[in-house]
Amino acid sequence: MTGPLTGITVLDLTRILAGPFCTMTLGDLGADVLKVEHPDGGDPARGNGPFIDGYSSYFLSVNRGKQSVTIDLSTPQGADLIRALVKKADVLVENFVPGTMERFGLGHTDLLKESPSLIFCSISGFGQTGPYSVLPALDIIVQGMGGIMSITGEPDGPPVRPGTSIGDIAAGLYATVGILSALHERGTSGKGQYVDIGMLDCQLAIQEGALSRYFATGEVPGPIGTRHPIFTPFQAFEASDGWLVLAIVGGRIDQWPLFCATIDRLDLIDHPNYKDGWARTENYRELAPDLDDALKKRSVADWIGRFRAVEIACGPINRIDQVAADPQVEARHMIVDVAAPSGKNLKVVNNPVKLSRSRLELGGSSPDLGADTKRILTTMLELTEPEVEALRDEGVL
Amino acid sequence: MTGPLTGITVLDLTRILAGPFCTMTLGDLGADVLKVEHPDGGDPARGNGPFIDGYSSYFLSVNRGKQSVTIDLSTPQGADLIRALVKKADVLVENFVPGTMERFGLGHTDLLKESPSLIFCSISGFGQTGPYSVLPALDIIVQGMGGIMSITGEPDGPPVRPGTSIGDIAAGLYATVGILSALHERGTSGKGQYVDIGMLDCQLAIQEGALSRYFATGEVPGPIGTRHPIFTPFQAFEASDGWLVLAIVGGRIDQWPLFCATIDRLDLIDHPNYKDGWARTENYRELAPDLDDALKKRSVADWIGRFRAVEIACGPINRIDQVAADPQVEARHMIVDVAAPSGKNLKVVNNPVKLSRSRLELGGSSPDLGADTKRILTTMLELTEPEVEALRDEGVL
Repeated sequence: MTGPLTGITVLDLTRILAGPFCTMTLGDLGADVLKVEHPDGGDPARGNGPFIDGYSSYFLSVNRGKQSVTIDLSTPQGADLIRALVKKADVLVENFVPGTMERFGLGHTDLLKESPSLIFCSISGFGQTGPYSVLPALDIIVQGMGGIMSITGEPDGPPVRPGTSIGDIAAGLYATVGILSALHERGTSGKGQYVDIGMLDCQLAIQEGALSRYFATGEVPGPIGTRHPIFTPFQAFEASDGWLVLAIVGGRIDQWPLFCATIDRLDLIDHPNYKDGWARTENYRELAPDLDDALKKRSVADWIGRFRAVEIACGPINRIDQVAADPQVEARHMIVDVAAPSGKNLKVVNNPVKLSRSRLELGGSSPDLGADTKRILTTMLELTEPEVEALRDEGVL
Repeated sequence: MTGPLTGITVLDLTRILAGPFCTMTLGDLGADVLKVEHPDGGDPARGNGPFIDGYSSYFLSVNRGKQSVTIDLSTPQGADLIRALVKKADVLVENFVPGTMERFGLGHTDLLKESPSLIFCSISGFGQTGPYSVLPALDIIVQGMGGIMSITGEPDGPPVRPGTSIGDIAAGLYATVGILSALHERGTSGKGQYVDIGMLDCQLAIQEGALSRYFATGEVPGPIGTRHPIFTPFQAFEASDGWLVLAIVGGRIDQWPLFCATIDRLDLIDHPNYKDGWARTENYRELAPDLDDALKKRSVADWIGRFRAVEIACGPINRIDQVAADPQVEARHMIVDVAAPSGKNLKVVNNPVKLSRSRLELGGSSPDLGADTKRILTTMLELTEPEVEALRDEGVL
């Protein structure tokens, strides 16, 4: 690995998605990620279908390139091993329910005292403080409580969940940002610190627009289908054979006249109700039938050709299979093969951070449970093989 | 500011959302952000409603704490000023259409030659390479082309846009990750580099789950309302007086029996079609009416009390006004006041990265256009006041 985080060791105590997404991102950027798992089955995500040749595709996708070490954290010997590994690591990430690490005797206050240069990051549903901190949470809980489901869907329709686990993934990305900023600061101070990421907090952060509109107007945003809350047109339209998205630019150069000319509705250009993006949003109920009728007259491909010819931003609404086969996605190497232990190549989504000098190479498939236990404990902690076997016999590994 | 990025200077040439979200995140973490804007109106987002006392709430939300310098990049003198400022900066971020910076004579190859320690980050719709690189894109375009709209919405319903600008925001977060990783690497090598972020690439990254399921099975994921593609129950339910979300944990401890007992449907516990989360997902059509009927029998508050008592993760589906008033949000200081130039306090969403040692303080309101031009040019570049006035008269500033 020659990524920008080469030389950084991450002790990864995370499970399921938010934490593993964070440590995957760090690993994709070159960090060594030691995934510590419970000896009895490990990360529960290993059991998540669908499976490819017995490998969980869910687990593979966010654990490629990591090493797996089994340690039962609830045993005193297991906690001692973690304390010893922490001394060799730069970063520890965990996403247990708050209080769990303290119960293992591995709370951040103690570990930071023993290892002052450690960056200890916790990811939890609601963060480590506040009245909800002890409540369990999973992706859908913070999507519901954070408001995004109230602004996703059809007007007057039921709440809708954005189709990806954005509750987990936003938290995983902010954890990555927090850890990297703390690593930068450690470069000067020599000191680590505690990074406390709450999934609910991150939901607010990615909805700054909806919240700022509410603070400005007192009006509560609702679901608006595919439309943009401020600009029009900036949405999906149904063409004769499918759906497309398009957005015109406002401001100093308003593309509205160009758009009207392209859809052959010159009469709309100077209509006083449609003079700018905000007016068109305010008067959308009146405008919608005209736009819907006009866009239904041609195919998706025909419209895309016409809009691109006049530099109006547009594109098809792709299904996942179409995304996977897209020539731009291929040109950007966004889907890559990793070799599974079976020798077969499996496909995963690549890291989207493209750097000119640091080379990023995904580090292979997801590890079998405990595949690296003996090697890590004998090399990093200098345990003997009999010591490792004894710990294994006791159920610690 | 005493954030972890204190001492880092960011030259921010970005507009609208993806770029400003990145530089806001860097600024919230302590970096000095010099926002360079066109003298004629500046960032087009300054014109985006709704407004509070004449301030764009949209602009305020993602530009709090930045400094504003007006420079017309298309003039030779303007480009010279940028080259001079780059020598004093650590990071440059821009989100013009690819090729624009080169047209100004400010391409990354040239700037990195002149300032080898610079980290130069471009954010664009499709990245700097590949067949679509020159096409214009805005949030909705990459949401459509990236597939998320095909997996958001009701089954068999029209495509739906997740209610936030996740096309822009995911790119802004990955740009932040890329810049911070390059800063870390620079700590050892002394060298900067180019960071190329494509919004479409980032859409794939946040949809690794949908893509990995497709690679595993060949089945194309579609929209499934509020449900989870793998687990059941992990979704919204309509109670007697509103909606709630709940999710049960599977794996070694399957909460299904506990859930069935809580909803008073003991008969479902041992039903062979519902034996695990995947079976319940596969047989959801059969299961749905039973769950829907059961959950309709009590109020949201009643259910939340009952589920929390047995440690099943759940919560209300909050509207944006309810999110803003939530006690956990308050306890986490996720909504904070910044002072506007008018003296009035305005509310913005806080940074969700909570650090134990580095203190984060938001740096005040969004700047008036060009508010810092004279100060920055006379202090950082040591221009005289008459020189600044002359450049202003020529229209460069």
